[in-house]
Amino acid sequence: MKLIVQKFGGSSVRDAERIRNVAGIIADTYRAGNQVLVVLSAQGDTTDDLIDKAKEINPHASKREMDMLLSTGEQISIALCAMALEGMGLPVVSLTGWQVGIRTTGAYSDSRINKIAPDRIQRELDKNKIVLVAGFQGVNRVGDVTTLGRGGSDTSAVALAAAFHADLCQIFTDVDGVYTTDPRIVPGALKLPEITYDEMLELASQGAQVLHNRSVELAKKYHVNMEVVSSLERKPGTKVKEVAKMEKTNIAGVAKDTSIARIAVVGVEHSPGVAFRVFDLLGRANINVDAIIQSIGRESSKDISFTLPKADVEEAVKVLEENKESIRFDHLTVEDKIAKVSIVGAGMMTTPGVAAKMFEALYDANINIQMINTSEIRVSVLIDEGDAVNAVRAVHDKFFGGED
Amino acid sequence: MKLIVQKFGGSSVRDAERIRNVAGIIADTYRAGNQVLVVLSAQGDTTDDLIDKAKEINPHASKREMDMLLSTGEQISIALCAMALEGMGLPVVSLTGWQVGIRTTGAYSDSRINKIAPDRIQRELDKNKIVLVAGFQGVNRVGDVTTLGRGGSDTSAVALAAAFHADLCQIFTDVDGVYTTDPRIVPGALKLPEITYDEMLELASQGAQVLHNRSVELAKKYHVNMEVVSSLERKPGTKVKEVAKMEKTNIAGVAKDTSIARIAVVGVEHSPGVAFRVFDLLGRANINVDAIIQSIGRESSKDISFTLPKADVEEAVKVLEENKESIRFDHLTVEDKIAKVSIVGAGMMTTPGVAAKMFEALYDANINIQMINTSEIRVSVLIDEGDAVNAVRAVHDKFFGGED
Repeated sequence: MKLIVQKFGGSSVRDAERIRNVAGIIADTYRAGNQVLVVLSAQGDTTDDLIDKAKEINPHASKREMDMLLSTGEQISIALCAMALEGMGLPVVSLTGWQVGIRTTGAYSDSRINKIAPDRIQRELDKNKIVLVAGFQGVNRVGDVTTLGRGGSDTSAVALAAAFHADLCQIFTDVDGVYTTDPRIVPGALKLPEITYDEMLELASQGAQVLHNRSVELAKKYHVNMEVVSSLERKPGTKVKEVAKMEKTNIAGVAKDTSIARIAVVGVEHSPGVAFRVFDLLGRANINVDAIIQSIGRESSKDISFTLPKADVEEAVKVLEENKESIRFDHLTVEDKIAKVSIVGAGMMTTPGVAAKMFEALYDANINIQMINTSEIRVSVLIDEGDAVNAVRAVHDKFFGGED
Repeated sequence: MKLIVQKFGGSSVRDAERIRNVAGIIADTYRAGNQVLVVLSAQGDTTDDLIDKAKEINPHASKREMDMLLSTGEQISIALCAMALEGMGLPVVSLTGWQVGIRTTGAYSDSRINKIAPDRIQRELDKNKIVLVAGFQGVNRVGDVTTLGRGGSDTSAVALAAAFHADLCQIFTDVDGVYTTDPRIVPGALKLPEITYDEMLELASQGAQVLHNRSVELAKKYHVNMEVVSSLERKPGTKVKEVAKMEKTNIAGVAKDTSIARIAVVGVEHSPGVAFRVFDLLGRANINVDAIIQSIGRESSKDISFTLPKADVEEAVKVLEENKESIRFDHLTVEDKIAKVSIVGAGMMTTPGVAAKMFEALYDANINIQMINTSEIRVSVLIDEGDAVNAVRAVHDKFFGGED
């Protein structure tokens, strides 16, 4: 008998009809002779509605109480879905994070799963029950409810799959798999039958929103077989695994991220320690810096540029201006009309000329590259935000266009 | 330093404005130098909305999953109210039933509090925190969430007051205390400054809806000082205690209950064991029978009449008809246009003529009495439903009217 973990997101359970649809998928899996462990998110807009309620009362509520509030959303989902399965005559039990014993560490609203107590779930599986678990939540050392931050339910699902050595962890979403790029931008985008953990990680962190980074990291660490699959249509999705079969193309996909900005620290001294001072200060302020470029400027001064999430710009500028005297710089410039376009592929490192092929596509499309940043399996370029869609189309066409 | 338990019902926390009002009451109590332990119900219509959601998916959902669903309502209330108190700069922590360690026994949806673990709450009180506890819920032996049934949050409050030896347990409601009768029916109804547990119990079970029976029973058992007080106006409420000071009137109030029906089992044998068979069957079907009257009929047969909640009539008729042969009766009659009017007063047993005074008032108002039923501190009469309001006015006037 196989153990299959299935995770359904908020839009998959947004109303009674969708919940019945999800119950149907679970029921089919169970009736096929599998043990089924299900992770659910909060229904549709529930989390946003609860956040609105909180803001009306106190826009600066503590994260502890926000977690207490928001964790009710997933609890409602598991209870309702359990009722749907009961209505189909199937044995089912719903469990919250604390009931399962999902122990967390770290900050409220952004905690990490530390360990999962197996007893309760195992007992219910042994009774042949379908087990529904509230995603996104756990309980910390002092017995408080904590939530796992963005993409938390995906992480819950993978952590449970790892803890129970599941044969498969299926992530059901609105889309039917991972594509070579966003199909809304490039109609010719291709669905990938398989992708490696590393490629999925790079795609996720470069703007593809199918899976959250942390869940893929966890899947990689514990060798969890993942699959991204549609909750609306019954057809094959994309498998995420250690090694993926690749077509003759050397990249897995093209991603676009327009949520970033660039800050240039202009006119810093040409002396050691300047970069350290800048990025140490930003790190202490919990600001995630992405790409860094240090250019040699006029005479004895130079510029340091870096990209960061748009949401962190205000805080970063504040931190740098407050420390202008200790860093010693002339002024800051902020550019937020930029985009990052990336290609990702595990085969890239063994195939020469992949980056050059990307630059050629951009040159042919008359798109200026402002910065370049690479990893072993990724090449990213920073360009004008207005060029982003054209850039994705041009690059995708260069790598995949010829195959249709 | 005094420890005060305060309980606020659903309408007291129905929106942001009401929650801020409740936070104001709690803050005043805390700033006056008291330890404050607060129990909250779910907001306004939250519970009904959740029930509607459940019914849409499965009208016959298990009680376990209903409890899982409904217990989120109180969790939302405590989180939001904690945020309001945080906004006022006060130290506060919210706790669910399982976090407190409110252990329950008995059925889902209608469980009883078995014991309360003192550790977590005591630790928070010792840190000078205001502690907000989700009412209506606990956790049973196997670690499942259970709810306490109707009036559950009142029961949570009294149980916490008993466990922590609170100096006072204040039940905040829409009304400002316990009245000699329903002020909507009798404008001259008087607010009682004090009432005994026994009187409150009789009033509650005879239709007064201020407090739920189980909470008063618990308060009596553990000698908890209760107070019914308005959440909207700051003025004295009604104290519920062992012995109450009484005015020269001998009764505490007049109650009316129109939620009952009467079933007559007509033409049963005049032999021993008939009554046993009837009420044993009803008891096994979990039907609460209130008053019983056995009248001697014609010759060798007789009738047995009893009152019961209207909601149970269908089930009772079904049970009796199914056992018509073993009980041996001629037919059943059901009368649901009836009302029970009661007077309650601890002084009644030592004061002759109280019942007669009630009957006189009804006679003067030309109201027919169908059945009479008494306890040590209560006299109830069964009358036509159409006479109920007049009866309450006439009886109230007889006992309290002369004092204005």
